[in-house]
Amino acid sequence: MRKALLSFLAVSATCSNAFTSLPQNRAFTATSSKSSLSMADLPVRKLGIFGGGTVGGGIVEIIQKKQDYFKELTGHGIEVAKICVRDASKKRDFDVPSGCIVTENYDDILDDDSIDMVVEVMGGTTDAKDVVFKALSKGKDVVTANKALIAKDLPEIEEKLEQCPGAEFRYEAAVCGGIPIIRSMQSDFPGDDIDMLSGIINGCTNFMLTSMDKGGKSYDEALAEASALGYAEADPTLDVGGFDARSKLRILMRLAFGIDVDEEDIACRGITELSKLDFDYAKMMGGTIKLVGVAKKVDEESVAAFVSPCYVTSDDSLSSVNGATNAVEVISSNLQSSTYIGQGAGRYPTANSCINDIVALAKGDKAPMPFNPFGKGKKFVNSYDSVFYIRLSYTDALGITRQCGEICEKHGVSIHSILQNPVTSKTDAAFVLVTEKVPLDSVKKAASDFEELDWCNGPVFYMPVLREDWVEAMSV
Amino acid sequence: MRKALLSFLAVSATCSNAFTSLPQNRAFTATSSKSSLSMADLPVRKLGIFGGGTVGGGIVEIIQKKQDYFKELTGHGIEVAKICVRDASKKRDFDVPSGCIVTENYDDILDDDSIDMVVEVMGGTTDAKDVVFKALSKGKDVVTANKALIAKDLPEIEEKLEQCPGAEFRYEAAVCGGIPIIRSMQSDFPGDDIDMLSGIINGCTNFMLTSMDKGGKSYDEALAEASALGYAEADPTLDVGGFDARSKLRILMRLAFGIDVDEEDIACRGITELSKLDFDYAKMMGGTIKLVGVAKKVDEESVAAFVSPCYVTSDDSLSSVNGATNAVEVISSNLQSSTYIGQGAGRYPTANSCINDIVALAKGDKAPMPFNPFGKGKKFVNSYDSVFYIRLSYTDALGITRQCGEICEKHGVSIHSILQNPVTSKTDAAFVLVTEKVPLDSVKKAASDFEELDWCNGPVFYMPVLREDWVEAMSV
Repeated sequence: MRKALLSFLAVSATCSNAFTSLPQNRAFTATSSKSSLSMADLPVRKLGIFGGGTVGGGIVEIIQKKQDYFKELTGHGIEVAKICVRDASKKRDFDVPSGCIVTENYDDILDDDSIDMVVEVMGGTTDAKDVVFKALSKGKDVVTANKALIAKDLPEIEEKLEQCPGAEFRYEAAVCGGIPIIRSMQSDFPGDDIDMLSGIINGCTNFMLTSMDKGGKSYDEALAEASALGYAEADPTLDVGGFDARSKLRILMRLAFGIDVDEEDIACRGITELSKLDFDYAKMMGGTIKLVGVAKKVDEESVAAFVSPCYVTSDDSLSSVNGATNAVEVISSNLQSSTYIGQGAGRYPTANSCINDIVALAKGDKAPMPFNPFGKGKKFVNSYDSVFYIRLSYTDALGITRQCGEICEKHGVSIHSILQNPVTSKTDAAFVLVTEKVPLDSVKKAASDFEELDWCNGPVFYMPVLREDWVEAMSV
Repeated sequence: MRKALLSFLAVSATCSNAFTSLPQNRAFTATSSKSSLSMADLPVRKLGIFGGGTVGGGIVEIIQKKQDYFKELTGHGIEVAKICVRDASKKRDFDVPSGCIVTENYDDILDDDSIDMVVEVMGGTTDAKDVVFKALSKGKDVVTANKALIAKDLPEIEEKLEQCPGAEFRYEAAVCGGIPIIRSMQSDFPGDDIDMLSGIINGCTNFMLTSMDKGGKSYDEALAEASALGYAEADPTLDVGGFDARSKLRILMRLAFGIDVDEEDIACRGITELSKLDFDYAKMMGGTIKLVGVAKKVDEESVAAFVSPCYVTSDDSLSSVNGATNAVEVISSNLQSSTYIGQGAGRYPTANSCINDIVALAKGDKAPMPFNPFGKGKKFVNSYDSVFYIRLSYTDALGITRQCGEICEKHGVSIHSILQNPVTSKTDAAFVLVTEKVPLDSVKKAASDFEELDWCNGPVFYMPVLREDWVEAMSV
């Protein structure tokens, strides 16, 4: 977000004496000696890292830099014993610690009984899965940053863990990179009940939408920019189609609601249908458009979810989350609204989350409950009520408003307002319907009927308005 | 923030089969049985709670509601054995658990060896301190929500802890109520280095500023509204003067930088000098005004800090934090920018934070490092460079612009722009200077010189602009 706020000038004449008169060092010593009472001379934790790329390198760097502090904090030295890479002869962009062996052979780590923690940052879901399962079988703790693996195999991994009582498993970096959302879900809400979570959980698309909104770029220009900056993959389908966000939403749903949903069942609309026009209309309405993953408890029995572009009002904390930044908002009984904003990817944010897992394991913190047990017996449903934004492209004709009214009335879609920018082409114009709160299915049916009409050009685009009181607020 | 986003409709016909076909319950059982291996038949944790008011009642309610889950999660039953209150005959707004004794005598809890965890939510710094110290002496774990006590006595408490190796101490609820900022500081940043933290950490003043900004209220109207809604104390000085924010900032500085500062040394300006006029100018500049506590590493040796109203740009995540909500942003080497937004006060948010501490203690999580050891030898400095907003009230006269220019030049204050609303009274008008990035001390000197001039009415008000690239951005 904000890159730097204020810079400060050291003026020694105004130095406080507090730091000499107050017992700050004593307090530090206090706790470390306290820790030492129970953790004196604990054995070194020896790490085997699978993957020596962006994230792996970041992890090694942080461990090297902070080794004295980690020893103080956990009682254990933390040592990178071996790193397994595809090509051991390749030059690394980090210093390999002295004594650390770089290998190409998985078993050099897996069969080494002196290595008691495995860090999997190689990616993929085949070899990575083998490595994780074998490491757990050998009683090694495992830390991973592998979203694809977690999204695909978390239930199976948890089952495996049951058979490996000596091993622990952590995956903070797998969702939203540097945002500690896994730990937050596990540690901030045991006494709470989550009603809803919504999030900007894909950095590439949020970068593109920001560029379209603030920079006035077209979809293609925004995608080119995202590619040039390394935010988009060579094949950007997973990002722009919303599928990456859906994988993360599925993991978060498991943590928030204890429900395990087949990804394919979650309705998913990406950003490919959005045009500059939609941002013009969003501005007219006072807000912007974000790709949001939403999951919500419908009642004590059911949870609904979707990934879709959404209209977001300007006073929503998600509206000022720009660029490749991620954000997750949790609505719950006790805490009401909690929002976590941070970097969703990148070398050091992701490595930092792995480090937090490594330190927690070295400290001996107990396995967190994997998810809220409230999920037992819950079911997933795929429809919801919302205020909707519906954009129709048209060729000018007589009777459009009447026909819109008839179709909406037929499907019980109550219209709040109709927005029309100045028309520059009679054969390629567009207008927007904003509905009252209506069921998604009714909007789908109305859209399908619109598309049958002669004056309607191409598919009708619709998206939820992310605040159900928005129509009311606008009507005042 | 957003109260409710979307409501969902359960449509059983679209139910996914995933929850029956995927092993979700098994996974849940997996970890609980895993936990049970090490935690089977653990003794009940017996709690003595000091304070049966708003927060105490919330804690008791949550424990009653979640007792089965907590047992599953920690291995221990968690039982409220005794509650100590001022008047035991008073009717409570919560159900006292069966078997729980309500007493007026501190020692009924402190001398009870079967009670191994004390929860201090009575407030104040005299009796509360006695209770905390005696409980620690007896080897009991202590959880507190008492900001005043922590701000005043944390170093002494940590010293005490050194002598009580059996006891643990937690205070998540003491800063920003429901926001897990203490745990975040302790758990998300061990491998990171914090450069700056800034936060909206007083709910009362943020409610008032929101009301002045969005509702067009005067300061007095906003204060009356805050009082009516219970956000302001009978004597609101601690809130509106910025002193409550300063206490919290001091605690956060200790966690972020390991530096212990005498509160009095932190420059503190409240919101009492702000007028509707300032919000008009802030709107003209495209942003708003927030009361922000800021602490920043100046170099490897020093940390600077202040509490002040600040001009905040509209794309800053703090700008959309409205009402009594709190927010903390941390800028660090690895994570870059991390923002935590949530409820800073209230029964359930505060109780939820106490519950998280209680559950962590019951789980046996190790004592977190109290703060970053980087603080050893650091000093506190009280000056900083910033872009400043300077508002001058004046009686119209010839030569004002020339004199402004002369004074600013004399003190090395480079002027970026001069803003002037339409003048409605020649004897009671105001204009605003926006500076380039300059030292605070220079602004102070210029303000003092302005105040000597005949046309200058009353004190000159100035505040930092919370983004050093703002002037550059506005100049484009």
